[in-house]
Amino acid sequence: MTETVHSLSLLRAGIDTYQQPVVYMREDCDLCRAEGFSVQTQIGVTLRERSIVATLNVITRADWLSTDTAGLSDAAWQALDAQEGDVATFFHPEPPAAAAVIRGKVYGKRLDDAACRTIVADTLDHRLSDIDLAAFITSCAGDRLDLDETIALTRAMKEAGQTLDWGHSPVLDKHCVGGLPGNRTTPIVVAIAAAAGFRVPKTSSRAITSPAGTADTMEVMTPVALDLAAMRRVVEHEGGCLVWGGKLDLSPADDLLIRIERPLDFDSDGQLVASVLSKKAAAGSSHVLIDMPVGPTAEIRSSAAARALSERLRAVADALGLALFVHQSDGSAPVGRGIGPALEACDLLAVLRRDRNAPLDLRERALDLAGALLDLAGSGHRGGRSQAVELLDSGAAERKFAAICEAQGGFSEPGCAPHRLPMIATTAGRVGAWDNRRISKIAKLAGAPNRRTAGVLLRTRPGEWVERGDPLYEIHAESRGELAWARDFALAGPEPVAIEGGS
Amino acid sequence: MTETVHSLSLLRAGIDTYQQPVVYMREDCDLCRAEGFSVQTQIGVTLRERSIVATLNVITRADWLSTDTAGLSDAAWQALDAQEGDVATFFHPEPPAAAAVIRGKVYGKRLDDAACRTIVADTLDHRLSDIDLAAFITSCAGDRLDLDETIALTRAMKEAGQTLDWGHSPVLDKHCVGGLPGNRTTPIVVAIAAAAGFRVPKTSSRAITSPAGTADTMEVMTPVALDLAAMRRVVEHEGGCLVWGGKLDLSPADDLLIRIERPLDFDSDGQLVASVLSKKAAAGSSHVLIDMPVGPTAEIRSSAAARALSERLRAVADALGLALFVHQSDGSAPVGRGIGPALEACDLLAVLRRDRNAPLDLRERALDLAGALLDLAGSGHRGGRSQAVELLDSGAAERKFAAICEAQGGFSEPGCAPHRLPMIATTAGRVGAWDNRRISKIAKLAGAPNRRTAGVLLRTRPGEWVERGDPLYEIHAESRGELAWARDFALAGPEPVAIEGGS
Repeated sequence: MTETVHSLSLLRAGIDTYQQPVVYMREDCDLCRAEGFSVQTQIGVTLRERSIVATLNVITRADWLSTDTAGLSDAAWQALDAQEGDVATFFHPEPPAAAAVIRGKVYGKRLDDAACRTIVADTLDHRLSDIDLAAFITSCAGDRLDLDETIALTRAMKEAGQTLDWGHSPVLDKHCVGGLPGNRTTPIVVAIAAAAGFRVPKTSSRAITSPAGTADTMEVMTPVALDLAAMRRVVEHEGGCLVWGGKLDLSPADDLLIRIERPLDFDSDGQLVASVLSKKAAAGSSHVLIDMPVGPTAEIRSSAAARALSERLRAVADALGLALFVHQSDGSAPVGRGIGPALEACDLLAVLRRDRNAPLDLRERALDLAGALLDLAGSGHRGGRSQAVELLDSGAAERKFAAICEAQGGFSEPGCAPHRLPMIATTAGRVGAWDNRRISKIAKLAGAPNRRTAGVLLRTRPGEWVERGDPLYEIHAESRGELAWARDFALAGPEPVAIEGGS
Repeated sequence: MTETVHSLSLLRAGIDTYQQPVVYMREDCDLCRAEGFSVQTQIGVTLRERSIVATLNVITRADWLSTDTAGLSDAAWQALDAQEGDVATFFHPEPPAAAAVIRGKVYGKRLDDAACRTIVADTLDHRLSDIDLAAFITSCAGDRLDLDETIALTRAMKEAGQTLDWGHSPVLDKHCVGGLPGNRTTPIVVAIAAAAGFRVPKTSSRAITSPAGTADTMEVMTPVALDLAAMRRVVEHEGGCLVWGGKLDLSPADDLLIRIERPLDFDSDGQLVASVLSKKAAAGSSHVLIDMPVGPTAEIRSSAAARALSERLRAVADALGLALFVHQSDGSAPVGRGIGPALEACDLLAVLRRDRNAPLDLRERALDLAGALLDLAGSGHRGGRSQAVELLDSGAAERKFAAICEAQGGFSEPGCAPHRLPMIATTAGRVGAWDNRRISKIAKLAGAPNRRTAGVLLRTRPGEWVERGDPLYEIHAESRGELAWARDFALAGPEPVAIEGGS
């Protein structure tokens, strides 16, 4: 009798709830009746040796589920490694230990190492609901995560996943905090540093809220979803790599926290630092360069904010034994011309190939960063920047980039979107500041980053003079629908770029 | 072209997401492609004159949705008042104004009247996601909502819904904060106060996390889902009523906040006070009696906590022009014998009918409360309690209760569950403290409150001596499955009652 109640066979519901494990049950199934209908119950599911805690959604009408079957969202299905027809058992989960820790933090108790490990472990086991995670993030925001707590959280996040060991130092890394549209310097910096003979096992993320991540851009040109063994082969052969970190299980709790942090949009230095440095430390880096664009529509808006964040980054890096340098840069405008995976790939290839039309700002930024990274790694008596210029201008960086792509599985040229629409100046004047947030949104509505060739191509730079009717930027899309969607948004609001003075 | 992209016809997905509006779209539908897949997008939906903001879930497999159709969760379907085949338009919602207010609060800014009104309005419009609401609740917990902020929030919550006006004072009300299993005094208190000639338009809630709410218990005996006009008729006729508040739109934001507060389980005095008093003020009450059980497994665990909460309640009541009295009571054990809607109905009927076996503790508590309420309302020179005893013992309260039920639509006797299982003492000894939380959980697993006759019947009281094999309590259920579910939980953990000493 008991077993009949506790077991249901599993069906893949085919619903992507963005990493939230959800169980769908009919309101007239025994198990569901025993639970009551109206509460969003957390329910435990065990299949073979795996267990998860999922949120119950009750099916009140659809006929795709029988009374002896439970549907699972994609996230739950994957977490249980389920197969069609598997029979799972269901149980009442105890409240996760982390819930009490979070409650303590809300009431002002500081987080120590054990508390952070508990939160990270229960997050990874999907034992915390979205609202638990939101409460945790809120309890740390507004500068309520102090330095020691940040260090404890960073360590706990690092230790909860894979940690890589490259044998000997230095192991170089580079990260941009508070992205800027088009600021795709990483592939150039990695190519230069690897060409200089350094080890740069670079892992990158895909875009979460931006029109492109470095992994998205690289994927236009070469495979990036490498496993650890393949990544090691590339790095041993070429010194560097440019892969997606998603298969490597580095600081895996970070992805689950970011999922909640991004929509909340709290600028919490502590959590940002833990996110960045736990990944770097897990990846086995010894020398980390941080690019920090500052500007009115960038994520970091003032030099006071940049200073506080830099201090926190350095202190936590110290505690974890990492050498870290923060390079503050101008974040007042997008970088290069393209925004979107393929468009950004074109820009960085133009820089590596020393094309006459290569965007100068992207080149200069990449050289500044590569120079700073070489200096940080102790490249010798010459200045890092002049060494970086030499490696780029001699074609050594281009050759290294090609070799890395080859080692990762081969190189392809970026494509170009079939649908393009120029957006023109409705008045003459001097081009002023771009709104980074607005232009990113237009690129995303056009399809970036999922449609690889979609995005925005900037046709003017701040300071240039435009006549009425001149193109300001182009929308690139892979379907007419997406083109219209982006255009409608662009036309409905203020211009993403200011046109000043003029007749 | 644009319209094709923005419009989809609507399908009721038949998924109860517990009040969260969710839109289900296929990943290959135009609109969804334009959005990108991987992010849990907030998306606006307009149908005729109504608009909501819903969370996008992407359908990756199921074949119940075509590419020109969007599925809606039950909450979204109801909020839009949709009909099968309706075509809705979709838009990009601006971030809700409340998001900036919440961010300000997280960073330490105090909430004023306007801020509270913004949060309440966006909550009611479903423009805040679950994680936004969790962030708001967290930002107020840990005593971070001060008295002025509590008053502002209470006012904003009250004013955002219906407010009742009963013409003249006093209008009596009674509320129990931090429920105790079986503590179903409200119907007795209302019957006594109405029999004394007072106006007691009592609205109650259904259970959220407990085995029964007053509305659930009353519904076993009489209709409770009355609209405002019907409720007025009952009150004009009988002086009092005992109805469910859910149809009356009193402080409607409260229900949406409670949905997030309960699983977070933060004891936030400010939000508790705003929740209780916004509803009382909206219901037109002038004199409010608060029952506050205090005990180690009650919601309020210490007299210090009770004192702080009482002070906050009185101060906010003052600001809103309500007379309020807090009656602190013993919360160390369940009250009466039954836990669950019908079982509690039997207990309170036994008290009203002066049955020889009526639970004495329930009778005494109800008399204490009724007496305090009569005193608060200024019932004359006699003490309220002796007046309450007289009204109960004379049968006046029983007749008034019957008349109220008759006016609400007729009275039915509570039923009894078909499946019952005695749980026996495994050792002899003296009965000690009941664990309120554990015994409530067993009652809920047995089916309460949705299965009306399900729950737990206590067979012993603290201080009694039991022999090995004596029944401690009985599980009542409407199905064998639910009986087994509750029994398994009971047997898997510690006894819900301590047996002390013994042989």
